[in-house]
Amino acid sequence: MTEQQGFADITGRLETLAIEVPSWAYGNSGTRFKVFGSAGTPRTVHEKIADAAAVHRFTGLAPTVALHIPWDLVDDFAALRVYAEDHGVGLGTINSNTFQDDDFKLGSLTNADPAVRRKAVQHNLDCIEVMNATGSRDLKIWLADGTNYPGQADIRARQDWLAEGLAEIYAQLSDDQRLVLEYKFFEPAFYHTDVPDWGTSFVHCLALGDRAVVCLDTGHHAPGTNIEFIVAQLIRLGKLGSFDFNSRFYADDDLIVGAADPFQLFRIMVEVIRGGAYDGRPEDGHSRAALMLDQCHNIEKKIPGQIRSVLNVQEMVARALLLDTPDTRAALAVAQREGDVLAANEIYMDAFYTDVRRDLAGFREERGLPADPMAAYLASGHQEQIEADRVGGTQAGWNS
Amino acid sequence: MTEQQGFADITGRLETLAIEVPSWAYGNSGTRFKVFGSAGTPRTVHEKIADAAAVHRFTGLAPTVALHIPWDLVDDFAALRVYAEDHGVGLGTINSNTFQDDDFKLGSLTNADPAVRRKAVQHNLDCIEVMNATGSRDLKIWLADGTNYPGQADIRARQDWLAEGLAEIYAQLSDDQRLVLEYKFFEPAFYHTDVPDWGTSFVHCLALGDRAVVCLDTGHHAPGTNIEFIVAQLIRLGKLGSFDFNSRFYADDDLIVGAADPFQLFRIMVEVIRGGAYDGRPEDGHSRAALMLDQCHNIEKKIPGQIRSVLNVQEMVARALLLDTPDTRAALAVAQREGDVLAANEIYMDAFYTDVRRDLAGFREERGLPADPMAAYLASGHQEQIEADRVGGTQAGWNS
Amino acid sequence: MTEQQGFADITGRLETLAIEVPSWAYGNSGTRFKVFGSAGTPRTVHEKIADAAAVHRFTGLAPTVALHIPWDLVDDFAALRVYAEDHGVGLGTINSNTFQDDDFKLGSLTNADPAVRRKAVQHNLDCIEVMNATGSRDLKIWLADGTNYPGQADIRARQDWLAEGLAEIYAQLSDDQRLVLEYKFFEPAFYHTDVPDWGTSFVHCLALGDRAVVCLDTGHHAPGTNIEFIVAQLIRLGKLGSFDFNSRFYADDDLIVGAADPFQLFRIMVEVIRGGAYDGRPEDGHSRAALMLDQCHNIEKKIPGQIRSVLNVQEMVARALLLDTPDTRAALAVAQREGDVLAANEIYMDAFYTDVRRDLAGFREERGLPADPMAAYLASGHQEQIEADRVGGTQAGWNS
Amino acid sequence: MTEQQGFADITGRLETLAIEVPSWAYGNSGTRFKVFGSAGTPRTVHEKIADAAAVHRFTGLAPTVALHIPWDLVDDFAALRVYAEDHGVGLGTINSNTFQDDDFKLGSLTNADPAVRRKAVQHNLDCIEVMNATGSRDLKIWLADGTNYPGQADIRARQDWLAEGLAEIYAQLSDDQRLVLEYKFFEPAFYHTDVPDWGTSFVHCLALGDRAVVCLDTGHHAPGTNIEFIVAQLIRLGKLGSFDFNSRFYADDDLIVGAADPFQLFRIMVEVIRGGAYDGRPEDGHSRAALMLDQCHNIEKKIPGQIRSVLNVQEMVARALLLDTPDTRAALAVAQREGDVLAANEIYMDAFYTDVRRDLAGFREERGLPADPMAAYLASGHQEQIEADRVGGTQAGWNS
Repeated sequence: MTEQQGFADITGRLETLAIEVPSWAYGNSGTRFKVFGSAGTPRTVHEKIADAAAVHRFTGLAPTVALHIPWDLVDDFAALRVYAEDHGVGLGTINSNTFQDDDFKLGSLTNADPAVRRKAVQHNLDCIEVMNATGSRDLKIWLADGTNYPGQADIRARQDWLAEGLAEIYAQLSDDQRLVLEYKFFEPAFYHTDVPDWGTSFVHCLALGDRAVVCLDTGHHAPGTNIEFIVAQLIRLGKLGSFDFNSRFYADDDLIVGAADPFQLFRIMVEVIRGGAYDGRPEDGHSRAALMLDQCHNIEKKIPGQIRSVLNVQEMVARALLLDTPDTRAALAVAQREGDVLAANEIYMDAFYTDVRRDLAGFREERGLPADPMAAYLASGHQEQIEADRVGGTQAGWNS
Repeated sequence: MTEQQGFADITGRLETLAIEVPSWAYGNSGTRFKVFGSAGTPRTVHEKIADAAAVHRFTGLAPTVALHIPWDLVDDFAALRVYAEDHGVGLGTINSNTFQDDDFKLGSLTNADPAVRRKAVQHNLDCIEVMNATGSRDLKIWLADGTNYPGQADIRARQDWLAEGLAEIYAQLSDDQRLVLEYKFFEPAFYHTDVPDWGTSFVHCLALGDRAVVCLDTGHHAPGTNIEFIVAQLIRLGKLGSFDFNSRFYADDDLIVGAADPFQLFRIMVEVIRGGAYDGRPEDGHSRAALMLDQCHNIEKKIPGQIRSVLNVQEMVARALLLDTPDTRAALAVAQREGDVLAANEIYMDAFYTDVRRDLAGFREERGLPADPMAAYLASGHQEQIEADRVGGTQAGWNS
Repeated sequence: MTEQQGFADITGRLETLAIEVPSWAYGNSGTRFKVFGSAGTPRTVHEKIADAAAVHRFTGLAPTVALHIPWDLVDDFAALRVYAEDHGVGLGTINSNTFQDDDFKLGSLTNADPAVRRKAVQHNLDCIEVMNATGSRDLKIWLADGTNYPGQADIRARQDWLAEGLAEIYAQLSDDQRLVLEYKFFEPAFYHTDVPDWGTSFVHCLALGDRAVVCLDTGHHAPGTNIEFIVAQLIRLGKLGSFDFNSRFYADDDLIVGAADPFQLFRIMVEVIRGGAYDGRPEDGHSRAALMLDQCHNIEKKIPGQIRSVLNVQEMVARALLLDTPDTRAALAVAQREGDVLAANEIYMDAFYTDVRRDLAGFREERGLPADPMAAYLASGHQEQIEADRVGGTQAGWNS
Repeated sequence: MTEQQGFADITGRLETLAIEVPSWAYGNSGTRFKVFGSAGTPRTVHEKIADAAAVHRFTGLAPTVALHIPWDLVDDFAALRVYAEDHGVGLGTINSNTFQDDDFKLGSLTNADPAVRRKAVQHNLDCIEVMNATGSRDLKIWLADGTNYPGQADIRARQDWLAEGLAEIYAQLSDDQRLVLEYKFFEPAFYHTDVPDWGTSFVHCLALGDRAVVCLDTGHHAPGTNIEFIVAQLIRLGKLGSFDFNSRFYADDDLIVGAADPFQLFRIMVEVIRGGAYDGRPEDGHSRAALMLDQCHNIEKKIPGQIRSVLNVQEMVARALLLDTPDTRAALAVAQREGDVLAANEIYMDAFYTDVRRDLAGFREERGLPADPMAAYLASGHQEQIEADRVGGTQAGWNS
């Protein structure tokens, strides 16, 4: 229990933490039952970026914003990039969307109709054009494709169509761009999903090539799934591209990361660090996994919700880094080697139970950030300002 | 394997089968990602009723329609009742809705704000007024109430508020009306739900009185839950009021009943019959459980989807009744008493595997119905007619 | 973040914490695949009690031991009671066992054969005789009863037989004894379980009377179940009798409490305290819920495993009590009333994230206990001693 | 609904159905709570083989028996092979067992101790020697390896050790032998399992080579997993080696195949046939997937339990083949291509609901088999005979 000393050892690595926030987190979201609006919600992508910039200003943790096409479509993405940089943030991952056009009702890249598959490919190619303008590295593809009824479609044929479509898209990426393929257990399809698990995402990425990697959304698994095992496996295979962080009790609840099972978030970060995907040592074949949020603030305020989220990640990264200090790592290795189950578990839990919050407050102050970003934001008047300013227009949401 | 003889034995009981269809099944529905529209979707409650009447006309199985308030709000419910009767159907259960008004964002009957709780009670009282006009027996209450984050609310206090509100509502029912309280495992709330399981619904109904009963929605349980056990238990306790039938692979998927796990539907109907809730013998303390559908036809055509649904229920009721013929029941009882696990299971499965479809076709023809209701509907031109007629206006959905 | 002051406020309530340990935790356990033996495992109930006494000596947290009949059957229970008291612990709950006799293969209290039901009742009556000798308050009944195949048994009739059998047993309890009925989702039965959920346990307890209460085993629920909700509900209904603490990732894993999801343990203890079942105020209708462990140390050393378990409970009770100090409770109530989701959650999480371990070390030292009970035990030579002493004989396990 | 004609079309393919039965299904099994014995249980591997031969004699479906080493260890496997052939069956898959030796308590191929890993490799090499004597093609490896507590072991390092050990084993296979790697979600390990999902099994098989393939046990998945999707995917990847059939409601219940969710078994067989793994067309790159049972008859009689199991598979294969007749396949393809969700589903369900049992009875009689194998077995006196003969000795079970 010498966490003071331990914390000093990890500040350098903590400084490298960067979390990408999603533009859509600042817009309205909800369930199929109701989307509640809220005061201050952005009407434009510019306002979303301004909100993301506020999160970064108060926390120092969120230097980039992910965009969603067509929700964030603008005529001039180069100008948008300048706008973002003027606000102190960069544009990050481009997320394609092939689930809201009527043509995609029965699938996009896996649709039985070749014309629809072609349209879905083209949308992704258009997104690559956006990437070229924004300077984004990653094209993230999450597919809503699947079926609701047994027999509705040929699930085997759809895999082949999927492989073909992805190959066409992959071929258009430049050498410094990546295709990131996300998987999801279920929803919005309820019988079968075309990319339901890490295995399926992996085999497609493997077929595509080195710049195709897997996106792991922490809410996209069956109940009981050991996610940190998947993390460790994908890193081992060189295919963990990025995370979509959020938390869930039941399904893809998209709650604030760390809110439902903080210990799970710790275990995940431990494996990220263990596998080299936190620091990234390209010379050893380890690249950094991109850390992104993908959440819905259905009932809580959105900017504070994002601040809480990046702080939760930061706190848990700090705890996980404490386990990776040389002495602790050595002690853990001894206990593991000797088969001392309780001693190994105790060392592991000690890092989790260490309260790093005071140390993190000092860490922030040393870097010119508020010790308590949430309190600072709430005291800043920013929320009141946007609520007053953003009157009229159409609030952004998943359909716009 | 003497199913011919067996089928003749059950036709009398089969004739009493009546399934209530929900008005909202004819409107558009979807997921949080997208609600796809479709040609021919009703714009008004009158068109919904007309659609329900079509289902009944082709199947003879759906004599009543459940309404949802405020989605189906009209000025003159007595006139609506006449309209429905002119179309050959009756108005059934009234479903209240306290989840789409901004005030209900953090709960309705369980809201920490007494004014909101009052508003929620009042909405239900208004629904009782509707019932008085429509002649409906049942007020069905499903609450979206719950929280997304631990600590967000006092879950214990909310139970007490819930009890108070329900008592106020119950007090306004007439002697021939019932309060039917539905439970749901999760969604739209993701941390806790105020009526998450049959136990909670039961204890509230028990506190209210004899005319408060439980509604069991087949999609509202945790993974792996043995639903037929709950059915048997609620019947034993005299508290199984009604079913909301649908099917699911993962969560509350609201697919066509029997589509995901037909054997489960069989097992459920076996317990309904075993417990006396299919036939109803009030003199023995058994009342009929109301059989309702609660489904979403997100991607399939809606009237055919409803026809398929009521036929699925009919087929499975027939199979379950085959198990309840005197000889079979006696044979099963012997095998159970003797602990002959495989023999008992074989008798049980024999009923399930019996293909009753040809017999049911004959059963329908003898009653002046089409042998194959689905084929008859598709050949009737009705679908083309409504698709041609219903142009313009706003298609009905969950928000209107 | 003034935890020092906060901790001083809760020491009085912390002192009342008492956790009952199970005699069988010191014997061998395992899975259907293998039961691994381990050096030092007790051969007799006396050695089990000695082990439990060691846990209490080092932690001050485990003053009583639960027994399992027939595993712990002795000729003279009065003498065993003296033996235990000489070792500094008392005898607690008596657990009946109706799942290891060949007659119970197809059920015990729910068996279709009246002679087997009678035998099962009699075993429980015998256990009441044991209670009279040991001075135990609680008869805990967990039934392995259920079926593996649909149709195998009449699940409805079994409920009635269960009610009859329980009534016979209940009738023999003295006024200061309780019947505690445990429920379990599944295992060892795989199709249906006769007491699968809290609702079923509750309705039977309700029918029996005031001294019949529910036992909640934290590993006996469906995936995703919100256990703290059940805790709050059962306390509200006056029927939460006791806990069987353990933890699980998948099914009834019986791991060390707090090992799998420490945050869940926190949430559970918050509701226990909130509802009055931690302190117990009989004048307000709140009785203390008995806190017991029910775990299997399949691969870790058993006495250290139990020490870790009671410490985990103590740490989490301390965190939960911090949330119940007047100022914090008031602040939480304000945030909840105002619907400030994030503020309420932050107050809640602050208690969870507070590292109470140093304060607890001081708390122990002030009471003459080792600051670090685990280290003290490992340094004491006790483990080496029992491993050297307990050679020969038959190690205790689930079958002896 | 012209199933007569349809059935005639599939008899040729039905004739090729062969299901491998496991020797251990005839021995005693149970749960961690109790293993119940039963009259007539084999005491030796010879008696197990005799039982398997009885299943084949009455059904014509079970020509081979899988062995489990060391449970079925004999001095002279060549003689055992002759013994089996004399009884009309062959010896099939050899299953290695690295989970019942004390050394394997914390893992076998993944143990932190190199000596234990070496021992685990050697056991598998010994099994290859057995295969050489029995003429078996497949070495099936299922590992109980995993951990119970976070931090207990280095899950990443264990993957590397696993890869090394498998490579050593694979290297010793002859050209006509295969390594079949099974995966399992959980149990007996409760925190992490070293081969928990198809993805992990697949990536190891991919690294090993063409003769390393995946075994899919239908009970080894997370709740809600779409197993037929995995089937389709593995066939597509050329890596579906074999099935372990059984059924489950909750976890790895190991019930009779088809007993819990017959529709799921149908869907699985549809994909097996669709992908070419039923018939096997090596010239097209499709090899037959081996169909094996892996079940536990805890409470039902064992030989009848196996007869029921192979009949269930046969019935469901017949239904699935009905969907694969040219006309039906064409009609389904049209409905799928046109996006007619309900029509496609109806064609699919029609095959499932077709009662093939009478046709199968005729099919058997034409081939000199009893029309009703279960009735014929029960009437044969065989069960009474073995119950009378097999008195004394030690009944076979999982530990012998």
